[in-house]
Amino acid sequence: MPEIHETRRARARHRVAEIGADAALITKAVNVRYLTGLVSSNAALLLPADGAAVLGTDPRYSGTAARTCGDLELLIDRLIGPALARLAIARGMRALAFEAQEMTVERRDDLADLDGGSLALLPLGWAVEELRMVKDDTEIDQLARACAITAEALARLLSRVRPGVTERELAVDLERAMVDLGADAPAFDTIVASGPNGAIPHHAPGERALATGDLVTIDCGARVGGYHADMTRTVAIGRPAAWQREIYQLVADAQAAGMTAALVGAQVADVDAAARGLIAGAGHGEHFSHGLGHGVGLEIHEAPSIGPAKPGTLADRVPITIEPGIYLPGVGGVRIEDTLVVGAGAGAAQSDQPLTTMTRELLVL
Amino acid sequence: MPEIHETRRARARHRVAEIGADAALITKAVNVRYLTGLVSSNAALLLPADGAAVLGTDPRYSGTAARTCGDLELLIDRLIGPALARLAIARGMRALAFEAQEMTVERRDDLADLDGGSLALLPLGWAVEELRMVKDDTEIDQLARACAITAEALARLLSRVRPGVTERELAVDLERAMVDLGADAPAFDTIVASGPNGAIPHHAPGERALATGDLVTIDCGARVGGYHADMTRTVAIGRPAAWQREIYQLVADAQAAGMTAALVGAQVADVDAAARGLIAGAGHGEHFSHGLGHGVGLEIHEAPSIGPAKPGTLADRVPITIEPGIYLPGVGGVRIEDTLVVGAGAGAAQSDQPLTTMTRELLVL
Repeated sequence: MPEIHETRRARARHRVAEIGADAALITKAVNVRYLTGLVSSNAALLLPADGAAVLGTDPRYSGTAARTCGDLELLIDRLIGPALARLAIARGMRALAFEAQEMTVERRDDLADLDGGSLALLPLGWAVEELRMVKDDTEIDQLARACAITAEALARLLSRVRPGVTERELAVDLERAMVDLGADAPAFDTIVASGPNGAIPHHAPGERALATGDLVTIDCGARVGGYHADMTRTVAIGRPAAWQREIYQLVADAQAAGMTAALVGAQVADVDAAARGLIAGAGHGEHFSHGLGHGVGLEIHEAPSIGPAKPGTLADRVPITIEPGIYLPGVGGVRIEDTLVVGAGAGAAQSDQPLTTMTRELLVL
Repeated sequence: MPEIHETRRARARHRVAEIGADAALITKAVNVRYLTGLVSSNAALLLPADGAAVLGTDPRYSGTAARTCGDLELLIDRLIGPALARLAIARGMRALAFEAQEMTVERRDDLADLDGGSLALLPLGWAVEELRMVKDDTEIDQLARACAITAEALARLLSRVRPGVTERELAVDLERAMVDLGADAPAFDTIVASGPNGAIPHHAPGERALATGDLVTIDCGARVGGYHADMTRTVAIGRPAAWQREIYQLVADAQAAGMTAALVGAQVADVDAAARGLIAGAGHGEHFSHGLGHGVGLEIHEAPSIGPAKPGTLADRVPITIEPGIYLPGVGGVRIEDTLVVGAGAGAAQSDQPLTTMTRELLVL
């Protein structure tokens, strides 16, 4: 779909012109993918404020680049950043914007030394990431597919969640189910955190076997066409204790409140507060140690970041996660997370109708 | 094994002192892991030239850090780089070395602005990467296990390599076999390149079904304890044509020559030449479009880089790959790759006895 990428490049060109640069050198891989469609671990895009873009990659990707980006001028070189910068100089460009959030100091210094220091290097800022926040139909379709696969894989896993099975076995099964259902790959390393491990938000699944009386938190996602789903459910093994029901209900209520608050135009800090207030009001504020959510797309964590002191508002067609948790050190924890699209971005769907569809009632297995 | 990490830190401290810094701020994740044992996507190490190190990470990893790095002072903060830099300032340090090859321009600028610009930021260079080149026994054990799993998984896969099966099916099966055999995960995205796709060194496995008459290149590796194996075999589906036998034998001879040349003290450019000369001499120089090999360890590609114009020599106990290839655009290709340890690093093993053990004769399936 070259026309989509050209539309995106046209928007990015405006930003390049706005900051007074002759061109931008886009080096962050997902931004290059967003603007060209090329999937490569080593590619960059020279995007003039006025004129045609040049896609650079190394010889390993030259065939793929020619096939998928036939509308673009290609430059094949092993050291693609300096090669594109030299091309920019040769074409009379002097002010080059670069992605300071991605480019290393070493690589920037290499560019600054080119041609006797003839390039003026300006920070582009997070311009492409900002463009990427609002998703087009193609992107929302891919994300919806990733979310549907995630929910289906998790639903299939539930019959295997029982005492004696290890965290790692469940994580492996779940990741395989996602791939069998058509995912490119897991969107990130699956988290299965059982019993006391549930108090560790990013627990790496290990050899612990599930036991009756555990809460088990499973955080997973499929990647489809580069788009990342993100979903978490916490289930109980055997009849839950009162304290388990209590924190579960609190997190479920907070998650519902967060999803309801995630409207077009809402301040992200207010969305966070809508959920966090319920948890803090019940005396568990210190046990909810991370932000409420984040954007998802070509990156598993991308703009906007939804937290207590975060700036900005939510726009239409922005996919985000809402994922409050309560973590009781040494005891256990609960997290519930869905991916949803703010506004009417998903067609008839509302913000509070997440793409990751599965009950948020406490499942007792 | 905290003592191993303290030994490594002692070596790194020497480098910090040599460049005249009060401390180094280590921010590259694998370097932090190497020096502390902590596996985290968000951690950094403040390593004074003289004095005890401070490990920083965010609240998600605080429990893991306390458990695995109990010998280190810990600093828990969401923005760990600036937090450690402020601590350095508070402790009277002024000259801070940083990893310019990893730190982004944006993050360096943030550090430079701290406390009214009181820190002098010096590039540390690739000091820790250089230390990481020569592996200790623990590392070689992990790598050997990763290589053994890789070879076993690939051997098991061979019975499934037949006409009609798709590249993607084989890649999925192979990755699952590695995990079933005990790998943490695949070391990288498995490559299965069949028929004309074999001419693309980094082909992503797709829906193409294998057909009689294909050469099929399979490039795979297991990751164990953070260490990456890397291995490639090319097999024939049905009786190979004369041109297929010819380029296969050429690559096999070049690979053997490269392994034989990979001795302690050898110039990496000479090792590359030993293999490349055979391929170029047969008129295929332009069809071998990448370097001969690379170091492997906590990264799948690390120092040393073995190529025509690369500097440096091979040291004892340095694990590398030797992986020549011939790629005929639109037609097909061959690559043969093993991971081996230079010198006597693997005990009784010689350089030409790779850790990835499987015949290098052309298998006809």
